[in-house]
This record gives sequence, structure tokens and C-alpha cells, in this order.
Amino acid sequence: MADLNERTITQAVIDRIAQTTEPRTREIMTSLIRHLHDFIREVHLTEEEWMTGIQFLTEVGKTCTDKRQEFILLSDTLGASILVITQNHRSEQGSVESTVLGPYYWEGAPERPLGSNLAEGVTGEPTFYSGRVLDVNGSPIAGATLDIWSGDGEGNYDMQLGETEMRARGKIRTNAAGKYWFRSIRPSFYPVPIDGPVGRMLKAMGRHPNRPGHIHMIVSAPGYHTVTTHLFVANSPYLDSDAVFGMKESLVVDFKKHDAGPAPTGERMQQPFYCAEFDFRLHKAG
Amino acid sequence: MADLNERTITQAVIDRIAQTTEPRTREIMTSLIRHLHDFIREVHLTEEEWMTGIQFLTEVGKTCTDKRQEFILLSDTLGASILVITQNHRSEQGSVESTVLGPYYWEGAPERPLGSNLAEGVTGEPTFYSGRVLDVNGSPIAGATLDIWSGDGEGNYDMQLGETEMRARGKIRTNAAGKYWFRSIRPSFYPVPIDGPVGRMLKAMGRHPNRPGHIHMIVSAPGYHTVTTHLFVANSPYLDSDAVFGMKESLVVDFKKHDAGPAPTGERMQQPFYCAEFDFRLHKAG
Repeated sequence: MADLNERTITQAVIDRIAQTTEPRTREIMTSLIRHLHDFIREVHLTEEEWMTGIQFLTEVGKTCTDKRQEFILLSDTLGASILVITQNHRSEQGSVESTVLGPYYWEGAPERPLGSNLAEGVTGEPTFYSGRVLDVNGSPIAGATLDIWSGDGEGNYDMQLGETEMRARGKIRTNAAGKYWFRSIRPSFYPVPIDGPVGRMLKAMGRHPNRPGHIHMIVSAPGYHTVTTHLFVANSPYLDSDAVFGMKESLVVDFKKHDAGPAPTGERMQQPFYCAEFDFRLHKAG
Repeated sequence: MADLNERTITQAVIDRIAQTTEPRTREIMTSLIRHLHDFIREVHLTEEEWMTGIQFLTEVGKTCTDKRQEFILLSDTLGASILVITQNHRSEQGSVESTVLGPYYWEGAPERPLGSNLAEGVTGEPTFYSGRVLDVNGSPIAGATLDIWSGDGEGNYDMQLGETEMRARGKIRTNAAGKYWFRSIRPSFYPVPIDGPVGRMLKAMGRHPNRPGHIHMIVSAPGYHTVTTHLFVANSPYLDSDAVFGMKESLVVDFKKHDAGPAPTGERMQQPFYCAEFDFRLHKAG
């Protein structure tokens, strides 16, 4: 083997992976190696900087637990997640837009009846959510599922509060007319977790860690593309500088304030409350 | 904030880091973000593939311990480490070449007298190493330090064998004439650790995990550039396909075989032994 120099090394590594069984894996790794090497050459990375990178990535890995995904947070804050999402949904014209999953999804939320209060005992201003799930032509989809989660009215997710039981989470299914309705709280803006390596990175970059107020949902129905999305609270702080670049104009919803009195569900509210209405459109799969 | 699409997202992320305090950090992160996004677009990374990447990186982080650095191994096997090393030593003309540190360096090896056997009780064929540390003009450097480590004759490092005490490690200092000599074993080729995520990656790539036989040393002297390097055993298997791309022709050394009898140190060997001679040249710092 001839000695490798800083130019020839890249092709040598790519040649070495020629035996990769899966063509798609080879394609991805070839591009990854080329960009990784180009990056190292472009900035003339020093050995000390390389070691800083190694230690940073190691700490990101160590910070991950079954309730916290620091690599997803890193991907989110570098705009990589939203780029992956955006380029994979461009063909789904007419569908509700997708945005980031985020680090707080908790699989297996219980299915709750239409009209349920998902945020029983959770701090925050009561909000009644309603709307329909439709196909791109506007026909209602019965039995579509909304897998819903959010933080509380102060921006804290159950996981962060050390809760072992789910709070402000639940699955709601549309009725025969494609309608859904449920009660939860009006979500507040909040910072992504800043006590780990990604938080230190944001600080070094002079960036604030905040996301505008939003409620998450994965909307799915048999025969349709599943969409992971949010509804954003209109006029929330940080709508124009979401720390994970997930904000989309089409997902911003007016949360209409109502005085104490009868709610859309018929119950009598002793305090002011909000109503938020949104129709989700899904694109046919296949 | 206008909606970001898969093109505009990159500049939006770069704009967001404009407040980075350290200009060098900003330079590195700008290039990193650009290449990361270009890679994602170039291969049209899917959401599933992105998640596979997140899980892989998380597992690499989880595999790191105080005795194992899986991120360094990942960097090594993708040729990133040797690229960083090569581009940072190109100006040190006349110096011994650098190569990878590898994952088995253990800081704080004890200083041993000239002529010591560093591999007391370690399996492997006895080898007497000797030579000089010189400046690039050939003048000897007295008091230069060789921080030496290797696996045993079967390619296993003390760390891998679960040893809590160092074996086949030690620091040797050159004498007034710039000479060094010590005894250890003739190192065997060996596989990098393959029981973790990087091992799985190599397997998926159809790559063997082996490194040719080598002994590590960090050579340093006050007023000179420190060099992290190896000596490679001539004719070792895998010299032409080092799994971490660390092999350099100039570091290949003939291990001369001798019959049982008197060794260079004066001791009488009951078994055949090897002699390996190499002069290290160091470049003046500053």
C-alpha cells in the first residue's frame, strides 16, 4: 500500500468499503466519508479540536437515557432533523406539514374517548382543541388517530418533572364525520434541555434554547401517510426563532380566549379558557 | 420568520450561530453545518435512515468507557483520525512520521531505566528495541522520552485482558548520546474491538478489522514537536490494508531474528529473539 496523504486518504477509505453488501449503505457511507473528510480539510481541523469533537460526541452519547435523546436534540438544533423531514415530505402536496418529533415522545400513550381532558391535574390554561382529519380533497377520514403530547402551561413535560406516569398525553380517534375534540392546556414556550453538552454548544453559539409554544401530534389513518407535526400557539414568543427550526406558518393556530362559562364540551368553566381549531389533511399512501 | 425549505434551512442555521463568541468555533460549526446538510441532501436521507444514524451514534457513545473509546475507533476506521494527523504534521519536514493514537493509550505509564523489559510476564517473542532520538539534522537529543505501549504477542492489550495493572507499557529516556534501548515483545497483528457498533459497521462494509503488527510510542523532548507514532513489523499481515489507515512505509522496521544466545543487553536468551532498530527524528518546535 502506497503511503496515503491528506488527499489520497479519502478515495482509499471509499475503496475499502466497496464490499459493502447493501448498495444503499455504501451510497450513504461514501457520501458521509467524503463530506467528513472535506470538512476536516476545509477548516484544517487540529488534533486538539478533533479531540474536543470526540469528547463532545462521547458526552452526547452518555447523556442519552430512555427518557432523553441528546443526539436527536443535537440533530434538531443543527437543523438536520427538520431538513430530513422536509425533504421526505415534499411530494405530499396538500397534506398538513410535518415538523420535528422532538426528544419527548413517549410511545404507548393510552387511547382516550373523544372529549377527554388529557391534562387532568396538569398546570396551565384550559384549552379545547377541535377540528377534523381530512384527505387532501377535503373528505373526512373516520377513525384517524391523533397521538398527542405536550408540556404543561409552564413548558415542562412529564418526563422532565420526573413523572413515572404519562401526563398531557393520549390518543384520540376521529368519529364517523372525521371530527376530533379533546381538552388539554395552552402550551407555553420552553427551553430545550440545556444542562447537557448540547446546551453548552448553544451557549457557546450565543443562541437562546427556546421553542415557541406548541402541542405535538402524530396523525395517522390506515391507507394514509402518517404525519408528525405540531400546532403552534399564535403570538407565542420565539415563533420567529425556534431553537430547532421546526416552526411552519401553516401550523400556527389562533388560541381564542373565552371568559368563564360554558365550554364547547358543555361543561361549565369557572375560569377563562381557550379554543383552538385545526383541520389536519392527510395524503394517500402508495 | 418565513418558512424554511430544504435549501434555505442551511443558511438559516448558519445565520443563527452568528453570535458565536469564538471566531474559530463559528468557522468550524459553519463548515460542519454546511457539510452535514449537503450530505443529507446528497443521499436524500430518509427519516428511517436518520433514526438508524441517531441510534448508531448513541450506541457508540454508550460503548465508551474509561478504557475504551468507540468514537476514536469510529474516527479511525473512517480515516478521519489519520487525515487530521497528516494535515497537522505536513510542515515538520524531516521528522519521523505521525500516525494514530488508537484507543489503547493509557496515560501515566511509569518511567523505566534504559534496557528494562517492559513486557515482563507478557506472552510473545522477546524483542530488543534500540536506536536514537535525533533532531532533523541528525544531532542526538539527550533526555528525550519514549512513552511506549503495545499488545502482547497475540495482539491483546492489557486493557482488553481486564488487567488493572499496566503491561507492555513504560517510559524510556534517551541517554546523553541520544540512545535508547529496551526489551518488549514482537507485536502481532490484531483486530480492533469488533463487539461494539463500529465492529458491526465494519462487518456491514465487508471490511476486515485487522491492524498490522505494531508498537506504539509518543516521542517527546523539550523544545521539539511531540510525535505520536508506531513502528510496524515488516512482513506483518495486513500491512497493506490497515483497518485504521495508519500504516506509513517509513515506519516499517525489519525485526531481525536471532537464535538463542547472548542478547544485545548482555543477557543470555534461552529462546530465539528479535532485534528492531529505529532512529526517531524530531522537528524543533516554534
